Amino acid sequence: MKVGFIGVGAMGVCMGRNLLQAGHAVTVFNRSPGRAAALVSDGAVVASCIEEAAAQTVVITMLAHDAATEAVVFDSGFIAAMPADGVHLCMATISAELARRLAQTHAQAGRGYVSAPVFGRPPAAAAAQLFIIAGGEPAAVALCQPVLDAMGQRTYHVSNAPAAANVVKITGNFMLAAIIESLGEACALTRSYGIAPTQLVEILTSSIFPAPAYKIYGGIIANETFEPPGFTLRLGLKDIRLALAAADEKEIALPLASLIRDNYLKALTRGYENLDWSALALVAQEDAGLPRR
Amino acid sequence: MKVGFIGVGAMGVCMGRNLLQAGHAVTVFNRSPGRAAALVSDGAVVASCIEEAAAQTVVITMLAHDAATEAVVFDSGFIAAMPADGVHLCMATISAELARRLAQTHAQAGRGYVSAPVFGRPPAAAAAQLFIIAGGEPAAVALCQPVLDAMGQRTYHVSNAPAAANVVKITGNFMLAAIIESLGEACALTRSYGIAPTQLVEILTSSIFPAPAYKIYGGIIANETFEPPGFTLRLGLKDIRLALAAADEKEIALPLASLIRDNYLKALTRGYENLDWSALALVAQEDAGLPRR
Amino acid sequence: MKVGFIGVGAMGVCMGRNLLQAGHAVTVFNRSPGRAAALVSDGAVVASCIEEAAAQTVVITMLAHDAATEAVVFDSGFIAAMPADGVHLCMATISAELARRLAQTHAQAGRGYVSAPVFGRPPAAAAAQLFIIAGGEPAAVALCQPVLDAMGQRTYHVSNAPAAANVVKITGNFMLAAIIESLGEACALTRSYGIAPTQLVEILTSSIFPAPAYKIYGGIIANETFEPPGFTLRLGLKDIRLALAAADEKEIALPLASLIRDNYLKALTRGYENLDWSALALVAQEDAGLPRR
Amino acid sequence: MKVGFIGVGAMGVCMGRNLLQAGHAVTVFNRSPGRAAALVSDGAVVASCIEEAAAQTVVITMLAHDAATEAVVFDSGFIAAMPADGVHLCMATISAELARRLAQTHAQAGRGYVSAPVFGRPPAAAAAQLFIIAGGEPAAVALCQPVLDAMGQRTYHVSNAPAAANVVKITGNFMLAAIIESLGEACALTRSYGIAPTQLVEILTSSIFPAPAYKIYGGIIANETFEPPGFTLRLGLKDIRLALAAADEKEIALPLASLIRDNYLKALTRGYENLDWSALALVAQEDAGLPRR
Repeated sequence: MKVGFIGVGAMGVCMGRNLLQAGHAVTVFNRSPGRAAALVSDGAVVASCIEEAAAQTVVITMLAHDAATEAVVFDSGFIAAMPADGVHLCMATISAELARRLAQTHAQAGRGYVSAPVFGRPPAAAAAQLFIIAGGEPAAVALCQPVLDAMGQRTYHVSNAPAAANVVKITGNFMLAAIIESLGEACALTRSYGIAPTQLVEILTSSIFPAPAYKIYGGIIANETFEPPGFTLRLGLKDIRLALAAADEKEIALPLASLIRDNYLKALTRGYENLDWSALALVAQEDAGLPRR
Repeated sequence: MKVGFIGVGAMGVCMGRNLLQAGHAVTVFNRSPGRAAALVSDGAVVASCIEEAAAQTVVITMLAHDAATEAVVFDSGFIAAMPADGVHLCMATISAELARRLAQTHAQAGRGYVSAPVFGRPPAAAAAQLFIIAGGEPAAVALCQPVLDAMGQRTYHVSNAPAAANVVKITGNFMLAAIIESLGEACALTRSYGIAPTQLVEILTSSIFPAPAYKIYGGIIANETFEPPGFTLRLGLKDIRLALAAADEKEIALPLASLIRDNYLKALTRGYENLDWSALALVAQEDAGLPRR
Repeated sequence: MKVGFIGVGAMGVCMGRNLLQAGHAVTVFNRSPGRAAALVSDGAVVASCIEEAAAQTVVITMLAHDAATEAVVFDSGFIAAMPADGVHLCMATISAELARRLAQTHAQAGRGYVSAPVFGRPPAAAAAQLFIIAGGEPAAVALCQPVLDAMGQRTYHVSNAPAAANVVKITGNFMLAAIIESLGEACALTRSYGIAPTQLVEILTSSIFPAPAYKIYGGIIANETFEPPGFTLRLGLKDIRLALAAADEKEIALPLASLIRDNYLKALTRGYENLDWSALALVAQEDAGLPRR
Repeated sequence: MKVGFIGVGAMGVCMGRNLLQAGHAVTVFNRSPGRAAALVSDGAVVASCIEEAAAQTVVITMLAHDAATEAVVFDSGFIAAMPADGVHLCMATISAELARRLAQTHAQAGRGYVSAPVFGRPPAAAAAQLFIIAGGEPAAVALCQPVLDAMGQRTYHVSNAPAAANVVKITGNFMLAAIIESLGEACALTRSYGIAPTQLVEILTSSIFPAPAYKIYGGIIANETFEPPGFTLRLGLKDIRLALAAADEKEIALPLASLIRDNYLKALTRGYENLDWSALALVAQEDAGLPRR
């Protein structure tokens, strides 16, 4: 299929490569062209402008946040350049509100729109093992399916409303942040009784919490290996804000998400912006008088 | 080994049976004698009083809470009846404070004391697959090891201080409660965007949360099968209070534990005392205007 | 002075009347013209359009929220209609972010802008007893001073940055909401020990809390006279959201404000949107199993 | 009347002096005898033992916490020494649970018991201007009334159950702590917009919060004059723990009290134990990256 790809970051480069290996014709655009060039040896064509990438059957955006996505879609000829049967496939973690606006705008223009954010870090992206949460009209999702299959191990089509997929994704990240917060408080409590975090994490992950999330984040937290970040604390804060914004739209309270947001803000104040988002776990320990080693 | 066993509840009956099958000589005492009788056909001797059970080489207590444990140990001839080389092996989830008091009292009397609370529900106890967190002097733990091996799949000897083992156990339950709270808020948020809890849980547990805790509690919460309880909400509240009490002794704050405690109290008010402790997840959903089905 | 007045609500009608009584020439605009007419007998001129009101030396906006203020200022000829030495005096409780945008926009157009939100309910507005928190360039504030003096008992010029005045106002409302939350929890606790809320409030306000806020809100809460609202719960939620938004801009956490926001959202779910904002106090009592009488 | 007085601290010395000036015969006991001696020149008799003080018609205890009160009443001949018509008048801030135990113990011994904790700092005690919250059987309270009148400006007899008076007192202190927390967050928010805490407090206390609590604590917080403490942070923590314990007994949640407790614990970790309890306000400011001056 003819695929446009906009946003070649740490995730995007892996996803684009898998599209090419699956035989899709990929036209890449990136604001800083160097990153797009990385895919040329794999067979990608580098677009000279946003519109060229948008003119493909499916155009994927994989940009860092709402503002970048809005700039690409609304402040260019993106929509006008899309073919009549084209679908915009937004795979970034954007807000429910922006997803709804994108869906409306594309519908008014007679174009398709699918939200398909993903679970997985760069290694999973490289191995085409992402979990993909898709939201959109069945026909549009079906059109995208071969493209999604090239990048992920499984697609969950959760709703005809694109925003619902974004909410599921945001919810997953909220639940990961809850694990991190609980690990931070767990380390604070057990350290005060003489148990080292490495010992605690070894016990927990070999007994009742044998899950990747506990192993990955427990290991980072116990060893304080917050650099280089797999996902920065600032991005973690962004996603918990998205969860609270999505809840606020429906006027519902998420007290645990509020607590996590507040602790992320405290972590920012302490200078942890560019550490891994699991550095949230330092806040509870420091507040207990237990500093970094 | 000659083993006394006091407290034959849902867990204790499985643990006692495994001791007998491993060849230990078990003398059982239970306040209501019917439950003790259940182990007779497996070879147990029923004691007529607490002291008779306490007079064995290792005497296990597996009672529901601090008050029951205190009554058995301090309001009887328990300590006086223990042999000179005897060890009291307390496997219940008791407070750090009581563990410390038990350790002191036994030390003054020249007797051994080991805290060895367990992770695992009755099916794990029946299969001798418990995870055991042990705290105590190495010699005392070593003496108990054959007994522990008959009941669990692995023993973690975390500290020479018995109370530290209780804190690790309490911490594990706090982290499970954090999962439950996060699932409750996750269901509230995604339900408000049209995603059914069963759908959400299926997605999460087949992608980023493939862990038993998410499958078990996610399933109960999504299907609202809170009865019969595997572990009652009142016991869940007891354990989160123990976590806060252990933290308060060291004068450290656990804000997530405070939030969970408050939500457990709200759940009590709504009449959920005897539901499974995962009924905590109803609070967030009801507060969002999303009632039980 | 020639004064334009846009937004004749419960507060605005009192403020406009005081301007007229102080001898100012007032040109009034209101979306629903009936309310503007109420000031005609006092000497006001009714403008046929926004621009006519904006063409005065000082144009006051007193609208319900950010969206209404933005619509009036940005979606009309408001700014173009202002005289060269004109000042826009925004007395509504708007966000810090909008205040900053208004200040920038007016500065670029060579016009003046002052934020001057007020403390006080309609009776205080009627008696010209408002407390006014002003932010803006000294010359612009000085120009507005005779106008402000006609409406309030005292003006505090807190900063050359208009947004700072809005933040002080929002902070005051946050602190009032904190009183309300504390009264709700206080009633929950003491009711559970047999003390009636009326009794509690009588004790507190005649001893350590002899302040208007405790008397007013304590009385409403104890007697459950939430209707008619002096200030609706939805507006209370709006203001606590403004406090959190102002804090979020500076990336600081306000945990008590987060708690209050979440409880306001729960109150909405329970149908209290149009009650007085002190109905927040019902949440803690209901969560404690103590319903309305 | 013949009055015993046990516990001559900063408050007790003022209260004892007022009893003597009102003509009561006061027999004083204090663990460290020097403090008792301070009342001799005013006419007090110094008791050589607890029992001598307890042998008066009314015996007042004014001790720092539950443990001190329990030691005096239960670990001595206190109750046996009381006359047949004697009343124990406990004016300290003790727990609801201890008040209930004291009431039961005295009832079994045929003696009277009244809880009568007070609102007011040492200057109010010196001026006999305390507010007294009394709980107990009407006859017992009536017997104590002349004694109470010598120390306070008003007595509120809130309940026949002594514990209810302690709960009202604890509730008052919780509400003061809520003011302090709200002032701390208010300073954090407004400082981040360039408003000095002294300026904020001046505005608030001269407009919508003209109450002593705001003036006193606002002044201390704005000027950071936390030493010498009027009431130490450790005592503030004690009282918020009492509020949570009283609520926990009735199984109700007080989320704001939980938040304050957690922030007091963080303040302890930061070394503020012996500062005025309003140093709680430093936590929010420091968490916002705004340190002490």
